[in-house]
Amino acid sequence: MRSPEDPALGAMKPHWPSVAIVGVGLIGGSVGQALLARRLAGRVIGIGRDPQSLAEAARLGTVTETTTDLAAVSDADLVLVATAVGSIGGLLERIDAAVSPGTPITDAGSTKARIVSGWERHRRRRRGRFVGGHPLAGSHRRGPSAADGDLFAGRVTVVTPATATPAADVETIGGFWSALGSTVYVMPPREHDRLLAAASHAPHAVAVALAAATPAAARRFTAGGWRDTTRIAAGDPGLWADILLDNAAEVTRALARVGRVTARLQAALERRDRRAVEMLLVRAKEARDAVGS
Amino acid sequence: MRSPEDPALGAMKPHWPSVAIVGVGLIGGSVGQALLARRLAGRVIGIGRDPQSLAEAARLGTVTETTTDLAAVSDADLVLVATAVGSIGGLLERIDAAVSPGTPITDAGSTKARIVSGWERHRRRRRGRFVGGHPLAGSHRRGPSAADGDLFAGRVTVVTPATATPAADVETIGGFWSALGSTVYVMPPREHDRLLAAASHAPHAVAVALAAATPAAARRFTAGGWRDTTRIAAGDPGLWADILLDNAAEVTRALARVGRVTARLQAALERRDRRAVEMLLVRAKEARDAVGS
Repeated sequence: MRSPEDPALGAMKPHWPSVAIVGVGLIGGSVGQALLARRLAGRVIGIGRDPQSLAEAARLGTVTETTTDLAAVSDADLVLVATAVGSIGGLLERIDAAVSPGTPITDAGSTKARIVSGWERHRRRRRGRFVGGHPLAGSHRRGPSAADGDLFAGRVTVVTPATATPAADVETIGGFWSALGSTVYVMPPREHDRLLAAASHAPHAVAVALAAATPAAARRFTAGGWRDTTRIAAGDPGLWADILLDNAAEVTRALARVGRVTARLQAALERRDRRAVEMLLVRAKEARDAVGS
Repeated sequence: MRSPEDPALGAMKPHWPSVAIVGVGLIGGSVGQALLARRLAGRVIGIGRDPQSLAEAARLGTVTETTTDLAAVSDADLVLVATAVGSIGGLLERIDAAVSPGTPITDAGSTKARIVSGWERHRRRRRGRFVGGHPLAGSHRRGPSAADGDLFAGRVTVVTPATATPAADVETIGGFWSALGSTVYVMPPREHDRLLAAASHAPHAVAVALAAATPAAARRFTAGGWRDTTRIAAGDPGLWADILLDNAAEVTRALARVGRVTARLQAALERRDRRAVEMLLVRAKEARDAVGS
């Protein structure tokens, strides 16, 4: 893992004459806005399937031009794929067929192993230079209107090269995410997926199970605790099914870990073991307090 | 269960010349502030063990006078016990020995069956008239400085009479919580504990298990999802150990229900069953959306 203090990342202010962003929703729109606000790019080409979303992104100034034609990536000095996890692999194939040779490409998908191995499988015939990325900056809001040029400031982006990825490509893509304001960590895709299963995907599954298991009669007696604990269960079911299935092995492993702690708490409650219950609560509080609000 | 639309509750504006509040933290201080702001009480006597907390409550104007002497409840027309769940039973015994005969008494504990049955065991020799209460309004903040006179406005308070409790006592205590701005539901203590296990106590246990099960290495890769889902795990371990142990049977039952849904999700992930995963996510989203932010 590369430390974010590495002077090679983010020390210089890079500039891309033209960046293509495929998908102009929360993440894509926020990247566009950050690129323009920070004067990191001249043109930002928003590419998508939905003319209405593209028009809204243009109106909001998150991109400088829009098109529904993926072939427009041929004009770009750097391409970002900011679409749902399930669509990224297929889009990378089509983008690679259209870019100028040597064009840096990154994505913003929440899982990395499958996307990176799909790219690597045909590394020798690739035109572009892909390095996966994952900005840990989300929102329950979606679409172009949710875009926020400060979304990445002070947040973490994980960049996930394959073993064969040249160091120069990692520098380029790390520098891109770093220039948007995020702290960049570099690690193998599998390591990313293992850590994010614990930090994001299993918590989502837990929130889903809790929300689905709450009897309707109990709903009106919920307060801040239930609302916080289940908030992410309101996320898009399709997007999250993609993520959980894409990282299923690590997610089930992380869920099993949560299940073991829950079983210990349940056993301590059943035998009315105050000391054991309180020790678990103290351990959880320490973990929670270590992260901050 | 009484509907909050029942005109008998909250139709008239009641007035108590003198209310004693035992415990001047978040809940006690907020009740004092609401009573004074809404001109529902003349005197609000703050009673506690810690002179510093009492002085702070007085300085903030959440009470009109303070004392460390529990015997001061003899002056009150209504007594509220707003201390930790574990201490309420013992305090009720001491308060009952000191109040004027017929004084209404309520509490704000998060569990009700044990507190109410402790009172009922000696109903025939009681001086006061106790009806348990539970305002579903919390905060991760604590102490007199967290007090907020609007804490109960638009929130739910559950009032939990025993079978032998006279209807007039339920009206009095229901009217008290209603006058503070909350919507009052009346139900038996065991029904309260069953519903709150699902709506509050099990979610707390789930957040605790998730926070405790997250490897330290994954902490820096957490974002809004993990933070929301685990927020209540930062709550006071002593207070929550009391609550979970006091309602252990219902909490373990609610946790088992969450466990069964988690197991179904895990199984669907393991067999890569997209339809089953997405159906669970849709069901959770519907439950979450039904409650609101």
